[in-house]
Amino acid sequence: MSEALVLALDFGGSKNSGATFRRTASGELELERVARRTSPAGADAVYDYATMVELARGLLEGRRPSAIGVSFGGPTRASAGVVVLSHHVPGWQEMPLAARLEEDLGARVAMDNDANVAALGEARFGAGRGCASVLYITVSTGIGGGWVLNGRIYRGAKEMAGEIGHMVIDPDGPPCVCGRRGCVEQMASGPAMARRARERLKDGARGGETLLRLAGNDPARITAQLVAEADALGDTLARAALEDAARALGFAIGNVIVLMNPECVILGGGVTKAGARYWEAVRAAARANVMPGLEDAIRIVAAGRGDDAPLWGAAALAEYKE
Amino acid sequence: MSEALVLALDFGGSKNSGATFRRTASGELELERVARRTSPAGADAVYDYATMVELARGLLEGRRPSAIGVSFGGPTRASAGVVVLSHHVPGWQEMPLAARLEEDLGARVAMDNDANVAALGEARFGAGRGCASVLYITVSTGIGGGWVLNGRIYRGAKEMAGEIGHMVIDPDGPPCVCGRRGCVEQMASGPAMARRARERLKDGARGGETLLRLAGNDPARITAQLVAEADALGDTLARAALEDAARALGFAIGNVIVLMNPECVILGGGVTKAGARYWEAVRAAARANVMPGLEDAIRIVAAGRGDDAPLWGAAALAEYKE
Repeated sequence: MSEALVLALDFGGSKNSGATFRRTASGELELERVARRTSPAGADAVYDYATMVELARGLLEGRRPSAIGVSFGGPTRASAGVVVLSHHVPGWQEMPLAARLEEDLGARVAMDNDANVAALGEARFGAGRGCASVLYITVSTGIGGGWVLNGRIYRGAKEMAGEIGHMVIDPDGPPCVCGRRGCVEQMASGPAMARRARERLKDGARGGETLLRLAGNDPARITAQLVAEADALGDTLARAALEDAARALGFAIGNVIVLMNPECVILGGGVTKAGARYWEAVRAAARANVMPGLEDAIRIVAAGRGDDAPLWGAAALAEYKE
Repeated sequence: MSEALVLALDFGGSKNSGATFRRTASGELELERVARRTSPAGADAVYDYATMVELARGLLEGRRPSAIGVSFGGPTRASAGVVVLSHHVPGWQEMPLAARLEEDLGARVAMDNDANVAALGEARFGAGRGCASVLYITVSTGIGGGWVLNGRIYRGAKEMAGEIGHMVIDPDGPPCVCGRRGCVEQMASGPAMARRARERLKDGARGGETLLRLAGNDPARITAQLVAEADALGDTLARAALEDAARALGFAIGNVIVLMNPECVILGGGVTKAGARYWEAVRAAARANVMPGLEDAIRIVAAGRGDDAPLWGAAALAEYKE
C-alpha cells in the first residue's frame, strides 16, 4: 500500500472518470493520472460499476491506494456509503457502493453526491480555495447545490442539504417535478431559459429572429445554449430570456446570502457558460436582493475545476477517512 | 479563580441579566444564580455597562470566573469581541465589549449577538438538545435568527448569517426598513400580523368585532397579542390575520429546510406564544413548501429556555475560549 496514493472516482452517469492523486512532501494532493469512460446508451449500474473497477485497476497498476473518494451523480446516504438511486442509470437503487469498492479495491471509501463533492473540490482546489464557507451551485438541466462549511461538506440532518434548485421563489410560477410551483430550477435552469424564450416568441415579443434561425425555425428545438448564442449575436429576445433566468438565480442567491452569508458562491454547469451578460445579471440580481451591509459580501464566481471538480473533491473527501 | 465557575451576561436592551454557572463533576453546566435589571428609559451604553459590571460582581462575590460568555442584543463582530451598535440603546457603537469586560472582571470573554447565543443555548440546553444542526428564529417586533452547526455557532463570512427575517418571499410585498420589499419580517413579525388585521378590517372582511373591542375600537392600537387573544375568543378576522403571518413564516422555513435541512428549527419570541392554531399554520405551510423526502424532516419546536436562552447560550459560549 502506498501511503501517498489516493484514488478518486466520479460516477457521472453517462460520463464516468477516475484519477489517482499523490500526496506531495508538503502534504498537498497532486494529480497523477486521469482516465475517462463514456457509457453507451442502455448501460446499467452493473455495467458502469464493472467499467469503473476496471478503470481504477488500470490507474492503480497493482498499487493499493491509501484511500478512495467517490462522487456519485445522484442522491446518496453518504455517511452509510449507500446510493439512493440514479435519475439517469437504472439499477443503482440502494447499492452499498462504498462497501463494494472497499472489497474490490482494498481501501477505505468515502463517498457523497456529486454536488457535495464538487463543492468540496472547488473549496479545496478551485475557485473557493481559502474560503471557510462555500455554496456550490450547478446550473444545467437541473439546479443542484452543495455546502462546504468550515472546510467540510455540510449534509444536513437527512443528508439533503443544498437543494437551492427547489427553493420556491414564485409560488404562482410554473409547476415543478417536485410537486410545487416556481422552484428556482423552474425559473433558472437551462430548460427554463429555453422555455422563457419560447414564451416570449409566443407572446409576440420583439426580436427572436436569430434565435429561431439557429433553432431551424422550430421553437421546440430552442435550448439554453442556442439562447446564449443568439444573445451573443445581438438577438434581443434571446437576451431577455437569458436575463430572466439569470435574474431568478441571482434573486435566490441573494436570499441564500442573507440566510447563510457564505464567503463564496461558486457556479458551475453548462448554463453558466452563457457569457458575461449572464454573469452580470446574476450578480446584479443578487446584489439587489441582500440587506444593507451585505452588498460587498457577495462573491459569485465561476467554478475553477470545471467538470473535474468532482474528481478533485473525491480526492479531498478520501482524506476524511484516512 | 474557580475552575468550575462560568459567568454569563445578557445585554438585552431594556432587560439585562446575568447568571453564574458551575461545572458539575460530570462536566455539565449547572445554573447557580440569576440576577436581572430593567434599564430605565433613556439609559445609554455607559449606564448599562456599569449596571452589568455591578450585577456581575454581585453574582461573583469576589470569586473569579474561569470564563465569561456574553450575549448582546444587536449586531456584533463576535470574533473581535466588538459591538457594532444597538438598535435600542445609544452609545454602543464600536464598543470593544469583550476587552472591557476582560479588564473589569478578570477572565476571558466570548461574545456574540443574541440570536446566535440563544441558538446555542437552545441547541445545548433547550429544545435542540442532541441536534447537530439548529436554526433558532425569534419572532417578535422583528425576526432574527441564528445557526448552530456541528455544535458551534455558524456566523458566516461577515458574521451576518441567520437573517431569515430579511429573506424576500414576496418581491411585490410591503416595503421593509432594509430597503427591499416583502421580507419575511414584513410578512410574519408581530407588527406584520397586526397590519394584516388592520388591512382586513379596512377591506371590510368579516369578523373583527372582538378584535376591535379589545383594541378599544382603535385599529391603530391592534397588536399581535390582541390578534392572538381575539383569535382565542373566536374572532375569524383575527384568525385569518394570525394565519397570514404564520403561513408566511412557515413558507420561509420550508425554503430554509430545502436549502439547509437542519435537524431542528426552534421558534422563540412573543409572537410564537399565539397558540396552537398559530403553530399548526406554521408547520402546515412549511410542510407544503418542502420537496418530497423532506416532509418528515420538519421539526419545528418551541424554544425550551424561553427568555433565558441567551443566558444559557452565553454560558455555553464561554466554554469556547476555555
